[in-house]
Amino acid sequence: MAIRLGPNQYGKAEVRLVRVSRATPRHDIRDLTVSTSLRGRFDAAHVRGDQSDVLPTDSQKNTVFALAERDGVGAIEDFALHLADHFLATVPAAEGARIEIDEHTWERIPVDGRGHDHSFVRSGRGVRTTVVNVDGSGADREVHVVSGIKELTVLKTTGSEFHGFFKDQFTTLQETEDRILATSLVSRWRYADTKVDWDKAYDSIVALQLERFAEIHSYALQQTLYGMGQSVLENHPEVAEIKMSAPNKHHFLVDLSPFDLDNPGEVFYAADRPYGLIEASVVRDDAPDPGNAWHGIPGFC
Amino acid sequence: MAIRLGPNQYGKAEVRLVRVSRATPRHDIRDLTVSTSLRGRFDAAHVRGDQSDVLPTDSQKNTVFALAERDGVGAIEDFALHLADHFLATVPAAEGARIEIDEHTWERIPVDGRGHDHSFVRSGRGVRTTVVNVDGSGADREVHVVSGIKELTVLKTTGSEFHGFFKDQFTTLQETEDRILATSLVSRWRYADTKVDWDKAYDSIVALQLERFAEIHSYALQQTLYGMGQSVLENHPEVAEIKMSAPNKHHFLVDLSPFDLDNPGEVFYAADRPYGLIEASVVRDDAPDPGNAWHGIPGFC
Amino acid sequence: MAIRLGPNQYGKAEVRLVRVSRATPRHDIRDLTVSTSLRGRFDAAHVRGDQSDVLPTDSQKNTVFALAERDGVGAIEDFALHLADHFLATVPAAEGARIEIDEHTWERIPVDGRGHDHSFVRSGRGVRTTVVNVDGSGADREVHVVSGIKELTVLKTTGSEFHGFFKDQFTTLQETEDRILATSLVSRWRYADTKVDWDKAYDSIVALQLERFAEIHSYALQQTLYGMGQSVLENHPEVAEIKMSAPNKHHFLVDLSPFDLDNPGEVFYAADRPYGLIEASVVRDDAPDPGNAWHGIPGFC
Amino acid sequence: MAIRLGPNQYGKAEVRLVRVSRATPRHDIRDLTVSTSLRGRFDAAHVRGDQSDVLPTDSQKNTVFALAERDGVGAIEDFALHLADHFLATVPAAEGARIEIDEHTWERIPVDGRGHDHSFVRSGRGVRTTVVNVDGSGADREVHVVSGIKELTVLKTTGSEFHGFFKDQFTTLQETEDRILATSLVSRWRYADTKVDWDKAYDSIVALQLERFAEIHSYALQQTLYGMGQSVLENHPEVAEIKMSAPNKHHFLVDLSPFDLDNPGEVFYAADRPYGLIEASVVRDDAPDPGNAWHGIPGFC
Repeated sequence: MAIRLGPNQYGKAEVRLVRVSRATPRHDIRDLTVSTSLRGRFDAAHVRGDQSDVLPTDSQKNTVFALAERDGVGAIEDFALHLADHFLATVPAAEGARIEIDEHTWERIPVDGRGHDHSFVRSGRGVRTTVVNVDGSGADREVHVVSGIKELTVLKTTGSEFHGFFKDQFTTLQETEDRILATSLVSRWRYADTKVDWDKAYDSIVALQLERFAEIHSYALQQTLYGMGQSVLENHPEVAEIKMSAPNKHHFLVDLSPFDLDNPGEVFYAADRPYGLIEASVVRDDAPDPGNAWHGIPGFC
Repeated sequence: MAIRLGPNQYGKAEVRLVRVSRATPRHDIRDLTVSTSLRGRFDAAHVRGDQSDVLPTDSQKNTVFALAERDGVGAIEDFALHLADHFLATVPAAEGARIEIDEHTWERIPVDGRGHDHSFVRSGRGVRTTVVNVDGSGADREVHVVSGIKELTVLKTTGSEFHGFFKDQFTTLQETEDRILATSLVSRWRYADTKVDWDKAYDSIVALQLERFAEIHSYALQQTLYGMGQSVLENHPEVAEIKMSAPNKHHFLVDLSPFDLDNPGEVFYAADRPYGLIEASVVRDDAPDPGNAWHGIPGFC
Repeated sequence: MAIRLGPNQYGKAEVRLVRVSRATPRHDIRDLTVSTSLRGRFDAAHVRGDQSDVLPTDSQKNTVFALAERDGVGAIEDFALHLADHFLATVPAAEGARIEIDEHTWERIPVDGRGHDHSFVRSGRGVRTTVVNVDGSGADREVHVVSGIKELTVLKTTGSEFHGFFKDQFTTLQETEDRILATSLVSRWRYADTKVDWDKAYDSIVALQLERFAEIHSYALQQTLYGMGQSVLENHPEVAEIKMSAPNKHHFLVDLSPFDLDNPGEVFYAADRPYGLIEASVVRDDAPDPGNAWHGIPGFC
Repeated sequence: MAIRLGPNQYGKAEVRLVRVSRATPRHDIRDLTVSTSLRGRFDAAHVRGDQSDVLPTDSQKNTVFALAERDGVGAIEDFALHLADHFLATVPAAEGARIEIDEHTWERIPVDGRGHDHSFVRSGRGVRTTVVNVDGSGADREVHVVSGIKELTVLKTTGSEFHGFFKDQFTTLQETEDRILATSLVSRWRYADTKVDWDKAYDSIVALQLERFAEIHSYALQQTLYGMGQSVLENHPEVAEIKMSAPNKHHFLVDLSPFDLDNPGEVFYAADRPYGLIEASVVRDDAPDPGNAWHGIPGFC
């Protein structure tokens, strides 16, 4: 009945990196939150307090900044893969690396009908994300890329029904043929390989999800999510599976009858908690094995 | 040396109201957080626990929903004024009302190159705000409208210097002729009267501030704020004064010299805390008296 | 109709200072968030971008750390006063200084029935605060100290009624003779002078407020707050006035009648928003003039 | 290459339940945030929008409140197990249930040296948690209970070293034999079975972790975590494994040498981001299979 060290990893979380490209007077900017994590043969650090295999998290942070300057950043997926490979090549005890990057979007400030060269305003249509896992190197290198978007808040004022549901002794909910449907979507998709134009794929997948959310006549949030995921897989052969986590942000029709007022779907109370939470995934039958691609990603079944 | 009740007010905070206009299949939406507050002759409630003068905060919440349905919402300034006047006409003990409204912006989801009729995505370019104070009614009615924007995050990658500052024994900061300037602006302006096209004024004032932030070559955040405020007052005679509260969101150039790497203004560390906090106001000499217009608004000198 | 600079101030916000006293093996710790702010003759910085009168906020941050080491910290009120006087003596253009400090409390970790010498656990019974304003120096020096506590969350399961209130056309609330009363109190009191044992006064005032909250049979949150404030002023002649801001954190009795279940004050739904917000102050008739003591402190009438 | 529904679950998240026990005038309170989730044969809802198998999340919320009244709450582990079994017995399509409960702690307000009967103050020493998964029923019923604590913020001012670590080209960190060690611990342990006195086990495991944190002379956060976990497993045979996620909340010694000041471990800057993030688990060799016990729990390797 021995007691021993189980799975473990360590790294630097939430390195706030802003990378400016000043090749021309029309600057570009990538604004990232980078988290790095290593796993492998780090037993000595845990059991004996011996750090000789441990690259400090401070050095991991320095690496993020140094590689951003030396090699540039590009798409967050490429930068994450580059970081992971670098750590696996540098730290002998590391067998795997997990890099998570959030990208915060900026738009150019409009001046005289044109985006300004070097002045930006933060855009709020969601945060782009990626979680990259690399195990091993050379011929044994195994790679997983899970990209996504979070904090994408969408709402439709009609085109959403909810009825015909299972009822038990504690069911009081009224059926409805017209309600507000709203969610703050977290959506993550796993790429089948790494030969992808990441920026282009991201833009297309997000646009597709927005369009499908708008167009699907909804009989439940489950069905809307499934339809969104299905379209992504149909149009993006490079995507092996997609997972969505969607709080059902309830908008309750306010009962104004005590005041002799009708409320024909016009006045709603937007509730904070509790909220429905719907999690669904859509997959290809022939998707490659996920391995540890989804490990430690919160909020998904 | 008597002890007595001092200033007091009470109300319902953060009523989350979503008002849908379905006059045509192309719906409109206003998504508001409304806080109401009454002040006046409420001593009995405090000193004796006698509620006979106190309209419950629950009734205030109901009123927000009921008036939104019965009378519509329109610009947040108009809705706030309407609520304030309603409470002062309804509650005999109320001598003043303070209504604060935040508006959360939605954009239509683009589908086939056109905004969808009833599907929206949350936009993140700041939150529109208003704080309305009304005292009394009829001939003695006194009104103050302070509108603004908050969470407007802007950044410029160049065109910002900081040097020639006062130095004391604890000064170690290096002077710079090129730095990133970034802030999450809170800006509030007081209208001189209420004969204003609120939506139009808001759009113009925000656009003007963004443009000025972009165009002013900055020698300090103070100077940028002053220039932004000055332009607003020059172009908007209906604005009596403007106050801005601007955290200087520091972006520190990372020292990569230990790694034999140059960093010509390309790699920055975005710090959370501490941050500089610059608060400035620009006023007209002939502005009407502010009275209690700014009362209880945090973060302003 | 000239346009000109209005009130302004600037400084460093949220400097996270941890000061350890290691005079004996039994260490002490003060964990502070310090914000400094200067006001005065800073027009040149705003209007012309001329920084020659401006001590950088970076130097203000350095000063917080340096004085903490050189002179020690002590009670947050003393440290704030010391910082304010230092800045006014150092920066010729500064006419006033505002220092705000939050103190985060730690308790010793119990080991073998005794608090450990150098290991601590964060305690959650509220955050101690102070806002100190100093104008001028020497004979003209004017000082205001407003101390307080925030995030002090309290609840009573009975001993709270609410009835006999004013009713209008939008009132639907039922009267009750037994409800949960809960709030997350922000309480701030202004000291009449600075000859105070700050730590002792703080402990006593907080204990008194807790006790009164527990003991007062409540007919409204207003009456509870007034009673709490009254006791503080009666027992603390050094306190000139006290202001309290108290969200009424609603706990709604869940209607279980659809399930043929009684609910005799046992099962409640704790709501987030909206909430009642009650703000009240208790003052002495002979309190000295507050001047700018309350300036920029949010959430108070 | 068919596209199909993958793993999915749905439920009601963050039901804020406060349960008062008023059997005697000395009331007791349990303040919980409950999230319920069902998984099973819900394909029709996703693929066809057919809700006939779906118990609404609103009914799940009602169930939380109704069972809290009808059957009482008790330890959060018991309440979670009771809810899970109830849903699996009630909803034919459900094959598994996941119930997550957070418990927020209250202490009695001290009055005259004794805890008050019905007045409480929120305590801040962490949030107690449990995640219960039940699959199937009767002979095939499989149960996993993972309990824990989060937001347990601890700090030691000495007794922590960090040196002898692996160095690469990007390493600049200085070795130290005395530093502040601080973390906001999330700790979760999996019980080997369900015949446990949950409240007693929780108190003991938390106390043990605090003690070990205090007593272990640390050569790295990894080693401290391992020692804490090891003690828990040695003293609690009912625990099969424990996982800890610990941000290394850096406290940097401020360099005061530019001001000719020594800083002998007294003045620190508490940084927000980035932070080290150490995740470690300690397991028994003969622990029963975890199955889906850890599924969807964020922040663990």
